Amino acid sequence: MNAIRIAVDCMGGDSGLPVTIPACLAFAQTHPDASLLLVGLPDELAAALSAARKSFPDVQPSRYQVIAASEVVQMDDPVEVALRRKKDSSMRVAAQLVKDGLADACVSAGNTGAWMAISRYVLKTLDGIDRPAIATLLPNQIGGATIVLDLGANVDCTAEHLFQFAIMGIALAQANLSDHRPSVGLLNIGEEIIKGNDVVKQAADLLRASSLNFHGNVEGNDIFKGTVDVVVCDGFVGNVVLKSAEGLARMLGSMIKEEFNRSWLTRLMGLTALPVLSRFRKRVDNRQYNGAALLGLRGVVIKSHGSADAYGFSCALERARNAVTTGLLDRITASIGQMNQSRSLATQSAAGDNT
Amino acid sequence: MNAIRIAVDCMGGDSGLPVTIPACLAFAQTHPDASLLLVGLPDELAAALSAARKSFPDVQPSRYQVIAASEVVQMDDPVEVALRRKKDSSMRVAAQLVKDGLADACVSAGNTGAWMAISRYVLKTLDGIDRPAIATLLPNQIGGATIVLDLGANVDCTAEHLFQFAIMGIALAQANLSDHRPSVGLLNIGEEIIKGNDVVKQAADLLRASSLNFHGNVEGNDIFKGTVDVVVCDGFVGNVVLKSAEGLARMLGSMIKEEFNRSWLTRLMGLTALPVLSRFRKRVDNRQYNGAALLGLRGVVIKSHGSADAYGFSCALERARNAVTTGLLDRITASIGQMNQSRSLATQSAAGDNT
Repeated sequence: MNAIRIAVDCMGGDSGLPVTIPACLAFAQTHPDASLLLVGLPDELAAALSAARKSFPDVQPSRYQVIAASEVVQMDDPVEVALRRKKDSSMRVAAQLVKDGLADACVSAGNTGAWMAISRYVLKTLDGIDRPAIATLLPNQIGGATIVLDLGANVDCTAEHLFQFAIMGIALAQANLSDHRPSVGLLNIGEEIIKGNDVVKQAADLLRASSLNFHGNVEGNDIFKGTVDVVVCDGFVGNVVLKSAEGLARMLGSMIKEEFNRSWLTRLMGLTALPVLSRFRKRVDNRQYNGAALLGLRGVVIKSHGSADAYGFSCALERARNAVTTGLLDRITASIGQMNQSRSLATQSAAGDNT
Repeated sequence: MNAIRIAVDCMGGDSGLPVTIPACLAFAQTHPDASLLLVGLPDELAAALSAARKSFPDVQPSRYQVIAASEVVQMDDPVEVALRRKKDSSMRVAAQLVKDGLADACVSAGNTGAWMAISRYVLKTLDGIDRPAIATLLPNQIGGATIVLDLGANVDCTAEHLFQFAIMGIALAQANLSDHRPSVGLLNIGEEIIKGNDVVKQAADLLRASSLNFHGNVEGNDIFKGTVDVVVCDGFVGNVVLKSAEGLARMLGSMIKEEFNRSWLTRLMGLTALPVLSRFRKRVDNRQYNGAALLGLRGVVIKSHGSADAYGFSCALERARNAVTTGLLDRITASIGQMNQSRSLATQSAAGDNT
């Protein structure tokens, strides 16, 4: 078996090299089938590597290769600057390695807008996809994960875009959940409250007329209930939901910590319950879900959370590896074929309704 | 001091009378300054009352009055049915009592769309308000509560609507938080991800040109961080955020319960930590935030969660009482005056920009 080659923008994220390099070495240690192309400013990268290698003596230098880039996209760089003025950025070089067939996937924890723009510019979108979308896994109550997209790449969406997101989300679910016919729901508000949104209604018509396993409308709580495998929404709604969920989880976490830190007695109670609390914390640790997929591009592109630590970043690498081993791109391409079929069915059905 | 008179639709909600009647009596017991107009099917209401009265022997029958209604709006009744075919529903009668000056506020746990449509039809909107909005309090990390609106009354909003929501939200914050100059933020997505939404950008321009304490854009996590006192968004986004938050909180709650129920040992650990866990549960108990305000109407109208229990419903009554004692309506009316001023300033400023 050929090694799975992952190009990593080692400069991206809030911390950059001190996080990405140990994460890459830890990942290489766990996955002997993977090799890494470490992209970044060569001197800094070499220094970080030699510091981190001591902790991973088993990882042979043949498992990774340093690829030089002369520029770094900053977290606050406008998209235009990242795209037009920094043509030798570590992001750009990482995406180009995929484009040139030298890597099977690329990963960055940098500026989301820039990473989307650069990977889209370098790799181009797949035929039949108008807009790439950002998809992530969120844990659900039934012990699995719900895929949600779009998370912010597309603020204004047409029904057609939402339909394409459904296709791509289903392909990701097939790859991740090894389910042959994942269900998809359209995020909407409770029927009891006035009508829905026009775009969502039209998208529901398209989905209903297709051959996809369309569950119908779902509400916000269904994401965490696990009602469907894939939840589709526009990027504005998806981004707000994701960040609200992060905010709520953080608030609850800090409140429970506060309660256990109130006095020596409560701290003692916390110590007694530590095994349970640790297990709970591990279960809800959102680092394990780190690594959003930028779907709809001619290559596997993964975005890590900017604030990810080494464990979180290694989970994003894990996700890149999974996308390659499960043939995510082929699945999306195949789904697009089905989509074109569904679409023409939907068009025929709509034409039929009008006669 | 005159008693605060609250008209209660006792038939609404998932459980109806078995929840609303005990809640009303408990509320009357706690608040000697309030009297209640209990609206519903008279026979059933009388039966529920006589059953519940035994638990509240101190509440004199002079504190409440039964008002007959011959119909009940069901949770799944279409808005049209509720509004046009059930002209003597308990909802309608409760709103009419406010209209006729016989009550200072009205509360229902029934069908949200119907309650909004009926109260709007009966009471009409305030001058200067195009669209009433639904506002609620959500707990935040700094120990207070963030007001969020709209939560689903208005799916498609213009910048002007969002601006009006800001005005009303601020009035509610002044009433609830006793803060003279509450801050308001506009819900948007991270700047790093492509541009914002056009409507939100225009609303930000209006707010920036006004005399309001406008903080600027906020993101989903800011709701629970407590970055601002009031968060404004359209009803689609607000509804999805609220329901996602409910879903996430429920999931985390059931996971922590599962972990403590795993074995006799973990159950013992749970017992040991019970005082802390109970305190935490009490702190995050969302029943205390029950009671959304339907803002922009010529009367105080409160919507309880349909699934509220008696404690939750009494919190919604509490919110109605607060709105009356803090002069919410007068504050909104006064704010509309300021709004007209802000608006003309905004218009002048926009005209100035164009010259």
